[in-house]
Amino acid sequence: MDAPSVIRTKRDSGELTDAQIDWVIDAYTRGEVADEQMSALAMAILLNGMNLREISRWTDAMIRSGVRMDFSALPLPTSDKHSTGGVGDKITLPLAPLVAACGAAVPQLSGRGLGHTGGTLDKLESIPGWRALLSNDEMMTVLRDAGAVICAAGDGLAPADKKLYALRDVTGTVEAIPLIASSIMSKKIAEGTGALVLDVKVGSGAFMKNLADAQELARTMVGLGKAAGVNTVALLTDMSTPLGLTAGNALEVRESVEVLAGGGPADVVELTLALAREMLAAAGVHGKDPADALRDGSAMDHWRRMISAQGGDVDAPLPVAREQHVITASSSGVLTTLDAYAVGVCAWRLGAGRARKEDPVQAGAGVEMHAKPGDPIVAGQPLLTLHTDTPERYEYAIEALAGGIVVDPADTPFTAKPIVLDRIA
Amino acid sequence: MDAPSVIRTKRDSGELTDAQIDWVIDAYTRGEVADEQMSALAMAILLNGMNLREISRWTDAMIRSGVRMDFSALPLPTSDKHSTGGVGDKITLPLAPLVAACGAAVPQLSGRGLGHTGGTLDKLESIPGWRALLSNDEMMTVLRDAGAVICAAGDGLAPADKKLYALRDVTGTVEAIPLIASSIMSKKIAEGTGALVLDVKVGSGAFMKNLADAQELARTMVGLGKAAGVNTVALLTDMSTPLGLTAGNALEVRESVEVLAGGGPADVVELTLALAREMLAAAGVHGKDPADALRDGSAMDHWRRMISAQGGDVDAPLPVAREQHVITASSSGVLTTLDAYAVGVCAWRLGAGRARKEDPVQAGAGVEMHAKPGDPIVAGQPLLTLHTDTPERYEYAIEALAGGIVVDPADTPFTAKPIVLDRIA
Repeated sequence: MDAPSVIRTKRDSGELTDAQIDWVIDAYTRGEVADEQMSALAMAILLNGMNLREISRWTDAMIRSGVRMDFSALPLPTSDKHSTGGVGDKITLPLAPLVAACGAAVPQLSGRGLGHTGGTLDKLESIPGWRALLSNDEMMTVLRDAGAVICAAGDGLAPADKKLYALRDVTGTVEAIPLIASSIMSKKIAEGTGALVLDVKVGSGAFMKNLADAQELARTMVGLGKAAGVNTVALLTDMSTPLGLTAGNALEVRESVEVLAGGGPADVVELTLALAREMLAAAGVHGKDPADALRDGSAMDHWRRMISAQGGDVDAPLPVAREQHVITASSSGVLTTLDAYAVGVCAWRLGAGRARKEDPVQAGAGVEMHAKPGDPIVAGQPLLTLHTDTPERYEYAIEALAGGIVVDPADTPFTAKPIVLDRIA
Repeated sequence: MDAPSVIRTKRDSGELTDAQIDWVIDAYTRGEVADEQMSALAMAILLNGMNLREISRWTDAMIRSGVRMDFSALPLPTSDKHSTGGVGDKITLPLAPLVAACGAAVPQLSGRGLGHTGGTLDKLESIPGWRALLSNDEMMTVLRDAGAVICAAGDGLAPADKKLYALRDVTGTVEAIPLIASSIMSKKIAEGTGALVLDVKVGSGAFMKNLADAQELARTMVGLGKAAGVNTVALLTDMSTPLGLTAGNALEVRESVEVLAGGGPADVVELTLALAREMLAAAGVHGKDPADALRDGSAMDHWRRMISAQGGDVDAPLPVAREQHVITASSSGVLTTLDAYAVGVCAWRLGAGRARKEDPVQAGAGVEMHAKPGDPIVAGQPLLTLHTDTPERYEYAIEALAGGIVVDPADTPFTAKPIVLDRIA
């Protein structure tokens, strides 16, 4: 077996055999297949595709490149959620303790932001003292005590995917459905969850810009999960406008706590409850309405236990950026567009995100929104507040908003998009 | 400018701008664009193509990555030949001194064999004392004294191509017409020849297996040459069966000397003369028939001066392999197939070629053929003699011949293929 022959098979639109897939993933993990060979193969896969058998074997080979976790010793069924990434997507923060409060255990291995989408670990790290890195024993202890744990994946979990993900990021090979699906599912299957709900984002702020691509990705991932014995469901949800009224690390933690306190923006509450109901049903937990757990304080209670168990000071004030800049409406009417990608790039440029994996993020930076699509607007009213520690970036950040905010005359017909666009099970 | 955005342009079937091409070739030569990025781009080019403007700019950028040679100080016009590579293709050896004997200077920068095709430098190095590496001054001296020089290209000539060629070899991205054309033409244009004749091989033993692909490659290269001010012509020639009766380093030198002495196999003589006439016409040299220069000894005289000037002992016996093995015909009839690829791989396995760039070759190893397609065969007569210093490889070498030698009943109709299949100018 040699790398050029495997590459040529896919380059010439052939099917990779199980043996070719097993060999190339293993040899790449060991460094025998070089980065320049794997990137050529990734480009051939992006352009020529893989069928379901190939994707399934590829996923399985990435799982076998590392360890598999096992939560069968827990007395509760496990349920996890994965979002393909969006702007203002803080849903994991209220969702994990909410589902725990309703009786399922949530072992949530999360990532950091890259590009214009935020990362759950970056958001939680804005809480003073909170630690993302846990040993396996610590993870199990938090999960037993708080019912939910959100932490970084260890190095031993699907190391082939870690290596390949970093490679794809610099070689223009991110946007391949077979590679996206196998990357997500190898981590989630290796994580050992019993049930999994996928939140596949669709729209300008997501990787998948249209519903058909998102449906194909969702079907592929649901098929991979079920084949591996994980009860998997996907919701396709709108990412044409940001979720909630904040995009940025500490800003999103604040909004998440509002939701856990029974308030918060309607769209965040709606999506959190929809995903919670799916996670509970997929885990076979019935009889408790998550809306009650938001009202009665039990979700907040699990949040406080979960954050405290990882060193976070739940009562400490959250970091605030050194500078604020308010953007006001130049005309009256109705807000018809508040583009997710524009807001995401703006928040990223303000310092909420990173350009390279090793860059730090600003805890307080980001965008606060004062109106959402469909809201009436009066000229001069605040539309956005930009937060940053580095005000020299304002101009560059504001450029990202060009064309992304549209106020039309008040009589312009406007129909709000539903949040949940489709469900694939 | 960044590598992922250039890669994505071609991945999404876009046209690369001049600025993108200039940047990516320069940055790759400097090491700023990594191998894994260039290989992903090469795969996207292989699968999505480049138009003539892109190929032309790509070629020009590779030329500008290094130095350009200049032979304008010579009193004679310069003319060079490049073959895309075949089995038994020793034509450069008699051709260069023959054209020199007819009044054009031949500055021939040649390569080594890789895979099943031989390399001119490997062949000449079987002559005791002969040196492939010359300084620019030495090259000019040999060219002035012998009228022709065959040597290795210096490191300064199209360094981007050197790096990219080695990368393509290990990443399954060799077989892309835009990359093959720009690789060949960047070296030949940088070499500074005034006229160029391309020998584009077609058939089982060549990179181009069919005439249509070979025609596209030839048209692309002729266009690139003319655009750069090099008077360029291409002959498309048959490579379904080996050229001449030998494939191997010293074996091919021996056959080349036979041609220079006025003898040699008819197909080698025919192609040598056809290419010589094209090279002379392209350089504007008229009035001398190369067939005369083979008969009157003047081509041989230039050969002896050229080899001697590079340290070669033209009167020393050529190396002979330690072991020989004769393959005989198992039935009588007519030889209808003697497959170039089969013979090439057999010679390579006997030790005439190398698996990796750094491997040595055996000077005496190779295949001697005792019959050519169309010849009558009597059961028991010798068909091939295999030569090697490593007889433990016989079995592996003979395996390569399976299906490659076919003797049909004597009354089977057989039409010999012409050697020159097409001409593109």
